[in-house]
Amino acid sequence: MDGLDWIAADWGTSNLRVWAMAGDGRVLASAESGKGMGSLTRDGFEPALLELTAAWIEGRARVTVVACGMVGARQGWAEAPYRAVPCTPVDAGSGLTRPEVTDRRLAVHIGPGLSQSRPPDVMRGEETQAAGFLAAEPGFDGVLCLPGTHSKWAHVSAGEIVSFQTFMTGELFALLSSQSVLRHGLAAEGWDDAAFQHGLSEALSRPERIGAALFSLRAEGLLKGLSPVAARARLSGLLIGTELAAAKPYWLGREIVLIGAETLCRSYAAALAAQGAAARTVTSGALTLAGLAAARATLKEN
Amino acid sequence: MDGLDWIAADWGTSNLRVWAMAGDGRVLASAESGKGMGSLTRDGFEPALLELTAAWIEGRARVTVVACGMVGARQGWAEAPYRAVPCTPVDAGSGLTRPEVTDRRLAVHIGPGLSQSRPPDVMRGEETQAAGFLAAEPGFDGVLCLPGTHSKWAHVSAGEIVSFQTFMTGELFALLSSQSVLRHGLAAEGWDDAAFQHGLSEALSRPERIGAALFSLRAEGLLKGLSPVAARARLSGLLIGTELAAAKPYWLGREIVLIGAETLCRSYAAALAAQGAAARTVTSGALTLAGLAAARATLKEN
Repeated sequence: MDGLDWIAADWGTSNLRVWAMAGDGRVLASAESGKGMGSLTRDGFEPALLELTAAWIEGRARVTVVACGMVGARQGWAEAPYRAVPCTPVDAGSGLTRPEVTDRRLAVHIGPGLSQSRPPDVMRGEETQAAGFLAAEPGFDGVLCLPGTHSKWAHVSAGEIVSFQTFMTGELFALLSSQSVLRHGLAAEGWDDAAFQHGLSEALSRPERIGAALFSLRAEGLLKGLSPVAARARLSGLLIGTELAAAKPYWLGREIVLIGAETLCRSYAAALAAQGAAARTVTSGALTLAGLAAARATLKEN
Repeated sequence: MDGLDWIAADWGTSNLRVWAMAGDGRVLASAESGKGMGSLTRDGFEPALLELTAAWIEGRARVTVVACGMVGARQGWAEAPYRAVPCTPVDAGSGLTRPEVTDRRLAVHIGPGLSQSRPPDVMRGEETQAAGFLAAEPGFDGVLCLPGTHSKWAHVSAGEIVSFQTFMTGELFALLSSQSVLRHGLAAEGWDDAAFQHGLSEALSRPERIGAALFSLRAEGLLKGLSPVAARARLSGLLIGTELAAAKPYWLGREIVLIGAETLCRSYAAALAAQGAAARTVTSGALTLAGLAAARATLKEN
């Protein structure tokens, strides 16, 4: 491909997304597939990458690929050891992991995730989004919240991630809404803002009651005809409220930036607003690519 | 069957268990099958009952069957409306539900579950175990805890269930240990008492942190080699600890009786003991039958 300088790869558990990058930062092309880490064995990574990029690298002697995410997990292509916070979110100088390849045109570098010793915590992928955010706002001092399957709260100061905390909120929502007894009374979609706020304030005032509050959704459906849409929104409010109650040391009195899917960020913003905390939202789409570019830049320097 | 007076049926979501009862309370025979409410459509209940009892009722004109549990749910054989607490745990006088039958020898009575208006809650089956317990200890004043998929705490006084509260503890344990990201680091069996106590005290001191404490199990497995057996016991401690934190108004300063499977009751007893609360355990095996007999007795009186 004319003008191709390097390839960026966001390689998570479920999906692989790649971008063909020009030297001046322009995106020449992009592609994606469902070949995430979770569905691949170790010898499946190189073919999955080539499937999307073979046409781009045709005729090239060597192309640098910078990848982030679960591709670097123990069960991934090659384990990229964690870097311990406090540290900058990405830093190729501390060494990117090089998986073995058959096609010698590929010079693949996998970025490490971050770890924290006390309390023990890990992230893989979110650090790259944080790097993308800091590339645009290098002086940011505050907290980044990345809601999702495993929501992350990260305290950022002086260009570094100082500390972070993961909550299983999104995974609990998925399990409870599709696998538990609550599924009988829960809509697959739809929203009820009053029900969300109800769950939120219930959880924020008595977060330890979460196990009972969850079953109440079932009981109210049986006894009081709680609608499946309201039950779904209330469940979301209960789980996000429990998260906010525990994450208070992160968000209280700090500047808050939400990074993630728009709908989910809107729920978190509403939840924080109800607590008197203002948050702005940055959609996550472009941040991973910006973070990979930041990692690529440090790679060049070394 | 010689001497058959009536048939008791414990009919839950997963199993059906029946007993052939003599007039003097002796058990003449018993049988069980996997034909619980969850696997049956409405017209499958009578055949499932006959499959186990046909030989017992051969040659009889009419036999009373008293059943409890999810058989009386909306998705069961026939909906047995809830009775509202405070009330005695069973009372046939307030009306048992009679499903339609093809085989006119069967006179089937389904006992109702209990409901509570504030906070909304329901039970089906546990009230029969409580009745069985009260048949042996009619003067009991204290709290019954029935740990399980949906753990129940019931305040009992003057022969009545005054109030109760359900926690989704067992279902959360099952979902998290087999379906979530935690499954990668969790043993299918085994126990570590220190890890259980660790999870317990962590949850009791900071119950609102449950969403973060759960992910810590994953992080400690990756970073510090937390063993799968320790992770399993810690998960149990975290979930039971969160339940105990919220159930404190029930157990604090009251006589506590645990009713359920021996291993699970032992965990709850250890957890309560660590909080300075003594509990005695009654295994649940015979209680349901005793409760069905109590329901049968009120049926006779009316």
